[in-house]
Amino acid sequence: MKFGGTSLADLDRIRHVAGLVKRESSRGHEVAVVVSAMAGETNKLIAWTRDLSPLHDAGEQDAVVATGEQVTAGLLAIALSANGVSARSWQGWQVPVQTNATHGAARIESIDPALLNTRFAAGEVAVITGFQGVAPGNRISTLGRGGSDTSAVAIAAAVQADRCDIYTDVDGVYTTDPRIVAKARRLERIAFEEMLEMASLGAKVLQTRSVEIAMLHGVPVRVLSTFEPDGSGTLVCDEEDIVEKKSVTGIAYSRDEAKITLHRIPDKPGVAAAIFGPLADAGVNVDMIVQNVSEDGKKTDLTFTVSRTQLHRALEAIEKAAPAIGYRDVTHDASVAKISIVGIGMRTHPGVAQIMFGTLADKGINIEVISTSEIKVSVLIAEEYVELAVRALHAAYEMDA
Amino acid sequence: MKFGGTSLADLDRIRHVAGLVKRESSRGHEVAVVVSAMAGETNKLIAWTRDLSPLHDAGEQDAVVATGEQVTAGLLAIALSANGVSARSWQGWQVPVQTNATHGAARIESIDPALLNTRFAAGEVAVITGFQGVAPGNRISTLGRGGSDTSAVAIAAAVQADRCDIYTDVDGVYTTDPRIVAKARRLERIAFEEMLEMASLGAKVLQTRSVEIAMLHGVPVRVLSTFEPDGSGTLVCDEEDIVEKKSVTGIAYSRDEAKITLHRIPDKPGVAAAIFGPLADAGVNVDMIVQNVSEDGKKTDLTFTVSRTQLHRALEAIEKAAPAIGYRDVTHDASVAKISIVGIGMRTHPGVAQIMFGTLADKGINIEVISTSEIKVSVLIAEEYVELAVRALHAAYEMDA
Repeated sequence: MKFGGTSLADLDRIRHVAGLVKRESSRGHEVAVVVSAMAGETNKLIAWTRDLSPLHDAGEQDAVVATGEQVTAGLLAIALSANGVSARSWQGWQVPVQTNATHGAARIESIDPALLNTRFAAGEVAVITGFQGVAPGNRISTLGRGGSDTSAVAIAAAVQADRCDIYTDVDGVYTTDPRIVAKARRLERIAFEEMLEMASLGAKVLQTRSVEIAMLHGVPVRVLSTFEPDGSGTLVCDEEDIVEKKSVTGIAYSRDEAKITLHRIPDKPGVAAAIFGPLADAGVNVDMIVQNVSEDGKKTDLTFTVSRTQLHRALEAIEKAAPAIGYRDVTHDASVAKISIVGIGMRTHPGVAQIMFGTLADKGINIEVISTSEIKVSVLIAEEYVELAVRALHAAYEMDA
Repeated sequence: MKFGGTSLADLDRIRHVAGLVKRESSRGHEVAVVVSAMAGETNKLIAWTRDLSPLHDAGEQDAVVATGEQVTAGLLAIALSANGVSARSWQGWQVPVQTNATHGAARIESIDPALLNTRFAAGEVAVITGFQGVAPGNRISTLGRGGSDTSAVAIAAAVQADRCDIYTDVDGVYTTDPRIVAKARRLERIAFEEMLEMASLGAKVLQTRSVEIAMLHGVPVRVLSTFEPDGSGTLVCDEEDIVEKKSVTGIAYSRDEAKITLHRIPDKPGVAAAIFGPLADAGVNVDMIVQNVSEDGKKTDLTFTVSRTQLHRALEAIEKAAPAIGYRDVTHDASVAKISIVGIGMRTHPGVAQIMFGTLADKGINIEVISTSEIKVSVLIAEEYVELAVRALHAAYEMDA
């Protein structure tokens, strides 16, 4: 069971969470609970470290920030004991959750389940600090934003849990954002690969890395609401456990997109390397890429997308590399958005993309860039059409409730 | 260097402390800094644990409360780095500071200085969490209230420091409480044994246990103000390093006193055991004891003192043991106070106590109980005379500035 910061925001909510844990425990399950810091706490601590020094040691920030989960883990263990449930708290270094040395964005390298398993056998609930581990040299590390989901799934995998329940402030994964489409439906099940695409395409319910780990280790993940705990939530599972494979399971969107076009670049080998090499060196992640067919066999245009926060950095890198690339001019547009349809059924249902293109055309929405994978189609459109496009697609794929 | 919670209460004060540490470091000293939690933080965390459960697991409370020093240690390390001082934070378990398993009031059993010494040699300042260590089984323990002083002195002993500087909100140890005696003087030096008596007799500037460790290991301790760091403070040192041994170095007082008298107890062997056995079993600390001379050889009165917070528990224990003791009746008085004069010179200056008794008699103050050791005389008086008595004694022993 994993609980986020809003689920643990004050003592009353911690008591409520203790009740949920007790319910699982009294059903005869062995339970590990992974907790985030109280809502707002991590931001407060990070702001302090930045105030003292903008270029501070990431290891020290980790030592400061990791206290947030230590507090909630200890408090929840106390609330459980007060409820008659045998429990103790575990910090990352106590388990231990071993990570690499990339402080602030560490990756879990191994989790030793031996101590936890001994305590489960003795009937004890383990309350474990999420988001953190111990780096080489015995220093505290943190996994970066949203890392508690990753902790929870990794621990579930390590103790070979039957399931990892992620309690959050929504009651499951929806066909699309219910704030845009009132008729969006909660999914009973979604395949790991679909969830992975949905998460990386903008659906914020689960952290991408946590879904990767769940898929790799085959840990079923259930997303459900702390505040409506009797709902069945959404089960993220192997596609073999999904009977009816829809062509489109969900629609994701992202406004964090910007488009850059290089005009009149030489149409010759090596030009792509001349463009994307400097961007990679500058730490810019390029998402979609489209190159026009050259009309004269000599010059062409190339368009690619980056996240809006990286737009400025990308333009700088491109301008620095101008002599090597040899473009006429560069234009950019930050008022674009990406709409994606995702579904494992696409593999076997031809014509799925065609419905998307036709629907958008009917609404007069121009598609600027297209990118596809085996189980998704993404298109770049003008940002102003996001709501219109998502609603039209939701209806076109017969997903409306 | 040890800094308490008021010295680290906000980011500006942490920056100020970083400046003080930098000054020591740039003088060429190898520096270990021991920090408390931000003022108020420990109380807030303890209140949370109590709110969740009055009878909570002390180990969990320790895990929660220990976060307070983790935050200040990390923040101070960041502030030092921002100041150009190479520094890193150390939590109790990282040093490690090994304690026993008495969570909430743990005793330090050993400190391994090897890692710290390696870092000193590399020119790095160690910022260490006070008040905490690691108990058997790798769980976090805390030393109990005021434990950061103890941590500081124990770490100073472990790394064989030349001196342990305790930075606090007063600029040294005074002849007596300056709030009562305006003419109280800051002492340049005070012997370990004198400080130990002063601390246990009610002077709150240093925790008793920290003075014991300093005396045991011969670590000179300097008490000075964070906010007036150019003062010379007070050096707590071996009495051999004090040239002029005054008969009375300081006057301490405590209002946390209560007196219990058992009337008409049998004057026979075993009666003391019948009284103080049950009190010890109830966890009551008895301080002063006086037994009157029996007039008839059969019955006598016995008076003893306890702290006011333990008065109720003491009376309960006495009443329960009434049949075994066999007293006629019991009276008590919680409006008493203890005044003590302390000085290593007493050993060689006869007549010191006589000045005390005479001075109090001149002021019409009745002495209810007397207790003495080699270097102190304590008397119990009515609480209303505390200020009068302390001022009169301060003048009588020629301590006025």
